[in-house]
Amino acid sequence: MSYVAPLKDMRFVLNELAGLSEVNALPGCEDASPETVEAVLEENAKFCSEVIAPLNVAGDKEPSFWKDGTVTTTKGFRDAFRAFGEAGWQGVQHPVEFGGQGLPKLVATPCIEMLNSANLSFALCPLLTDGAIEALMTAGSDEQKNTYLANLISGKWTGTMNLTEPQAGSDLALVRTRAVPQGDGTYKISGTKIFITYGEHDMAENIVHLVLARTPDAPEGVKGISLFIVPKFLVNADGSLGARNDVHCVSIEHKLGIKASPTAVLQFGDHGGAIGTLVGEENRGLEYMFIMMNAARFAVGMQGIAVAERAYQQAVQYARDRLQSRDLAGSSGPVAIIHHPDVRRMLMSMRSQVEAARALAYVTAAAYDAAHHHADDAVRKANQAFYEYMVPVVKGWSTELSIDVASTGVQVHGGMGFIEETGAAQHYRDARILPIYEGTTAIQANDLVGRKTARDGGATAKAILGQVRRTEEELASSSSADLAVIRKRLAAASKAFGDVVDYVAGNMKTDIKGVFAGSVPYLKMAGIVLGGWQMARAALIAERKLAAGEGDADFYRTKIATARFFADYMLSQADAYRAAIVEGSAGVLAVPVEQF
Amino acid sequence: MSYVAPLKDMRFVLNELAGLSEVNALPGCEDASPETVEAVLEENAKFCSEVIAPLNVAGDKEPSFWKDGTVTTTKGFRDAFRAFGEAGWQGVQHPVEFGGQGLPKLVATPCIEMLNSANLSFALCPLLTDGAIEALMTAGSDEQKNTYLANLISGKWTGTMNLTEPQAGSDLALVRTRAVPQGDGTYKISGTKIFITYGEHDMAENIVHLVLARTPDAPEGVKGISLFIVPKFLVNADGSLGARNDVHCVSIEHKLGIKASPTAVLQFGDHGGAIGTLVGEENRGLEYMFIMMNAARFAVGMQGIAVAERAYQQAVQYARDRLQSRDLAGSSGPVAIIHHPDVRRMLMSMRSQVEAARALAYVTAAAYDAAHHHADDAVRKANQAFYEYMVPVVKGWSTELSIDVASTGVQVHGGMGFIEETGAAQHYRDARILPIYEGTTAIQANDLVGRKTARDGGATAKAILGQVRRTEEELASSSSADLAVIRKRLAAASKAFGDVVDYVAGNMKTDIKGVFAGSVPYLKMAGIVLGGWQMARAALIAERKLAAGEGDADFYRTKIATARFFADYMLSQADAYRAAIVEGSAGVLAVPVEQF
Repeated sequence: MSYVAPLKDMRFVLNELAGLSEVNALPGCEDASPETVEAVLEENAKFCSEVIAPLNVAGDKEPSFWKDGTVTTTKGFRDAFRAFGEAGWQGVQHPVEFGGQGLPKLVATPCIEMLNSANLSFALCPLLTDGAIEALMTAGSDEQKNTYLANLISGKWTGTMNLTEPQAGSDLALVRTRAVPQGDGTYKISGTKIFITYGEHDMAENIVHLVLARTPDAPEGVKGISLFIVPKFLVNADGSLGARNDVHCVSIEHKLGIKASPTAVLQFGDHGGAIGTLVGEENRGLEYMFIMMNAARFAVGMQGIAVAERAYQQAVQYARDRLQSRDLAGSSGPVAIIHHPDVRRMLMSMRSQVEAARALAYVTAAAYDAAHHHADDAVRKANQAFYEYMVPVVKGWSTELSIDVASTGVQVHGGMGFIEETGAAQHYRDARILPIYEGTTAIQANDLVGRKTARDGGATAKAILGQVRRTEEELASSSSADLAVIRKRLAAASKAFGDVVDYVAGNMKTDIKGVFAGSVPYLKMAGIVLGGWQMARAALIAERKLAAGEGDADFYRTKIATARFFADYMLSQADAYRAAIVEGSAGVLAVPVEQF
Repeated sequence: MSYVAPLKDMRFVLNELAGLSEVNALPGCEDASPETVEAVLEENAKFCSEVIAPLNVAGDKEPSFWKDGTVTTTKGFRDAFRAFGEAGWQGVQHPVEFGGQGLPKLVATPCIEMLNSANLSFALCPLLTDGAIEALMTAGSDEQKNTYLANLISGKWTGTMNLTEPQAGSDLALVRTRAVPQGDGTYKISGTKIFITYGEHDMAENIVHLVLARTPDAPEGVKGISLFIVPKFLVNADGSLGARNDVHCVSIEHKLGIKASPTAVLQFGDHGGAIGTLVGEENRGLEYMFIMMNAARFAVGMQGIAVAERAYQQAVQYARDRLQSRDLAGSSGPVAIIHHPDVRRMLMSMRSQVEAARALAYVTAAAYDAAHHHADDAVRKANQAFYEYMVPVVKGWSTELSIDVASTGVQVHGGMGFIEETGAAQHYRDARILPIYEGTTAIQANDLVGRKTARDGGATAKAILGQVRRTEEELASSSSADLAVIRKRLAAASKAFGDVVDYVAGNMKTDIKGVFAGSVPYLKMAGIVLGGWQMARAALIAERKLAAGEGDADFYRTKIATARFFADYMLSQADAYRAAIVEGSAGVLAVPVEQF
C-alpha cells in the first residue's frame, strides 16, 4: 500500500491550530516563512512516499540480520539513508552552524510524522540520531560538538542511546556499566547494554553511542550516573576515522514488529576496554539524558500518530475497493464496504483519533518553539510548562491509541487483515512497541502525575484548562447543532478533568498508591480531553471558514463531522475516567499478591 | 509459560452463577452429577496442561506447512489429537448414542475454555468438528448420521465448515460454488472455498467438509444455498474409506497468528468433480449453517476468554518474577513489579474482564441447556431467547476484549513483551483473528440489533434488564461499601442500557443507518453491562459466603474487589456508550466517501 502524506490536514493544523505564522515571527525562526515551510512539506512528502515508504514491507519480510558481530540492514535501507542525509532531512531542526536547516520544531514535526508513516523501522535511526544531537548540543564540549555534530546532522554518522541493561529496564538506578578515568581525559567503559535501537548497522560510517555509566566513586542510584560518548570508531584529531572501539554487537532481538530496525545487545569493553569521553559533568548523566529523552519521547508520540495514519490510509483504500453486501438503504448489488455504517464508524474512529493526536502534538511543538525563542520571559516559561506537561501526554496517549487504530485497521480488512501479505497486520505488530520504548506509558504517567501535575499543585494543568474553557465560551456563541454537541461534551469532559487534577494534586501526599493506581487513566484522559479541545478549536475555525466562504468547504465540513465524532465517541468517556481515577483505586489495590 | 486451569473460578461460576445443580436436575442432564463434573474438570485440566499446552509455542514457531497438496501439522499435534480423541474429549457434549459423553453444554464449556487456553491453534480442529457434528445432528439423514457421527465424535475424523469464497466473505448471498445432482442421490460439487480452518491436515484419517453450494435451479441470494457433505475420502457402505474425493488443498495462508492451524484454500471438482450428498433439504443450507454457526460463535467467544486467561496468567507470572524500582511506599531495594500500582491496574483490568466474560458465557451455556431440556415450555422459550440474545454478545464482546487483554499482557512485560521468545506477543497475534472469523464483530452486532433486539421490539433485552434490576435490589440491601459502589454503577449502566435498547428498537424503521452506526458499540455495551451484572451477582454471593464463614475467604474477598474494579473501570463506561449510540450517528455518517 502506498503512502500519501496528509498535507491538507497538516497545513490546517500548522497554520490554524499551531500558529505557524506566530512561530515564524519569533526571533530566530525567521527562516520558517510560508514559502519555505511549503517547500519543506512538499519535498519531504515526495521523498517519504517515493523513497522510504516502498521499503516498509521489505523491512518486515526481510529484516535486518546479525552475523559475526555485524548487522546487515534490509536491502535498500543503506541507499535510502544516504539519500535522506544528502537531502538534508536529518538536519531540519538542527543548527545551521553545523549544517542543519535551523527550522523550528513545529516544522520538523510534520517531517518526523511523514518519515514514520512511510517506514517506522527506518525512521528510528534518524530519531535516535536526533536525540544524540540534542544531548551534545546541550551538554557537549566545543570539541565534542566540533567532532560529532556536523557528521551526525549530515547523516554521515548516526547516534544511539544506551540506557537499558538486563537488570535495569525502566529503573536506571540499577545501571551497572562502569566508566574508569584513564588520566588522559578518556574513560574505559565496560558493561552490557540491551535494547539498543540501531546499536549496530551498515547504514553509516560511524555510530556515536551515548552511554549511561558509573564512575568508580559515583554515588549509588540515579545521582551517580554519567553520560559518555563511545563511538564505534574512534575519531582522529583531523576528523578522520581511527581505530575500532571495543564496543561489539553480540546479538539482535527477534521481535514482534519493527523488524528492520536492529535492536542490539552491545558489549562494551570485553576486549581491552571501550574508550569514551565524558559529556558535561560527572553524575549529571540522567539530567542530560532527560533532555534527549524528552525530544525522543515527543518523537515516539509522533510515531504513534504516524503509524495510525498509515493504518488509516490502508483501511480506507480497502474499504473503497472491497465489494460486499448490499447497502442498508437498498442497492441493486453489493457495494463497497465503506458504505456500511460500521465500517464508517471504524474509519471515523481511526481518523478522529489521528487528527486529534496530530493537532495536540503540533500545538505542543509550537509551544516548544515559543519556549525557546519568545522574547518575553513569562511567555517562554508558560510555554515551557505547557510543553513539559504535554510531552508525556503526546508520547503516552498517541502511542496507546495507535494500537487501537492499527487493530481497527486489521478489523476493517476482515479475514484478509489477518493474512500477512495484506500488510494491515504489520502496523498492528509495529505499533505494539510504541507504548513501551522510551519509557512505558506507566513511566510517562508517573512523570505526568509527579513532576508535571503534583509538583506545581496542578497549576499548569489548571492553566491549560483555562484555555479549554475559553474555547468552550467560543463554542457557546455558535448556532451550529454540531458545535453545540461538541461544546456540551467538552464542558462535561473539562469539568471531569478538573476534578481529576484536583484529586491528583490533592492526594499525592496522603494516598500516593491510590493516585498512582489511576496514573495511566489520568494520562489517557488528558489526551482525550486536550485532543478533544483541539478538535473543538478546529471545528470553530472550520465553521468560520465556511461562514466566510473561504477555502475548501468539503474539508471544513468533514473537519466538523470528525470533531463531532470525537466528541460523541471519545470526549464522552471522560466521566468514566473520573470514576476510575477518583473512586477506582480501591479495586486496583485490594487484591493481595498471592491471590493473582 | 505453563498453563494452570483456573478451576477455582470455574467451579464458582458453574455452581454459584450458572446453576450447575439446576442443570443437573433437568431431564436428560442427570449424568452431570457434581462428582462427574468434578472428574471431568480435573481430568480435562490435567490433559490440557500436560499434553496440549506444551505444544502452543511450537505451533507458533514451526507452523503447519503445505507441500504438494498435503498439510503437515506441527510436530506433536497428531499424537496429541489422537490422545484427545481417545480420552473422549471430542464427545463431552455429544450424544451417548454415537459414543459421546452426553453432558450438558454447561459442562462442555469449561472444557472448551481449557483446551483453547492451552492451545488456540490446536483447539480449532475440535471446534470445527463440533460444528459439523451439530449440523449433522440437526439436519442429517439417519444414513449420514450413522456414517459420520461416531467417527467425528471419537476424533477419528474431523469436520470443517466451508462458507467463504474469494468474492463472498461475510456476504453469503454471493456464494457461487455449484452442486449438480447426478440422479443417484449424489451431487457434483465445484468451486473454490477460502479460509477453511483445518481444511487439510494429517491429524485424522478423513476430513468431513460441510459445504455451502447452489443447485442449478436454486433461487438467487441466501435463499438458494444448500448444505452438502463432501468427505475427503468417500465412505464405503461398510464404513471403510473409499476413493479420494476431488477436493484439494491448493495452498494455506501465511497468517499473523494461530499459525499451527492450517487455513486452507480448497478447490472442489477440478479433476472430474467432488462427490457430495445433500444435508436436509435443498435451499435450506443457510438455516442449518446457522445452527452450527451459533455453536461455533459461542465457542469462538470462549476462545476469546481462553486466550485472555492465558495472557493473564503469563503476565502475572512475569509481574511476580521481575524486580524493578522501589515500592512507592518505600522499600530497601527493587521490588517485584506486581507491587507497582499501574502493574496492579493492568492485571486487574485483565482479570476482571476475563472473569466477567467467563461468567456471562457460562450463564449463557446454562440457558442453552434449559432451553433444550427444561420440562416447561415457557421456561424453554425464555431460555432460548436469552441464549440467542447472548450468542453474539459472548462472541463479539469476549473476542474484542481478548485483544485488549492480550495487548495489556504484552505491556506488563515491558520491552521483553515485544521479544517473540517471551511468548506474550503470540497471544496478541493469535487473539487478533477472534473478532473476525465466524462472523466479524459487525456481523454479530447486526444479528444483535436486527434479529435479537429490533425483531421483538426489545422484549428479550428488557426481560434481561428486569433480571439485572433484581440484582440491583439485592445489592441495595447490603451494607458493604464495595457493593454500594457496584450497585451505583450497575444501576447507572442498566439505565443507560435501557435507553439504548429503546433507541435501537424504536428507530430501526425510521433511521436504519443511524441504528447500525451504533451496532458494535451496542454489542460492547451489552457485554459490559451484562458482564458487570454477573460480577455484581458474584459479589453478592461472595458477601454471603463471607458472612456465613463458608469456603475460601480470600477467594471471596478477591471476587468482591474484582467486581468493584469492573464496576469502576468498565460499568462506568456505559454513559459514554449511550452518548455514542444514541447521539453519535451524525458524526459517523456525515463524511462523504470521497473525503476519506
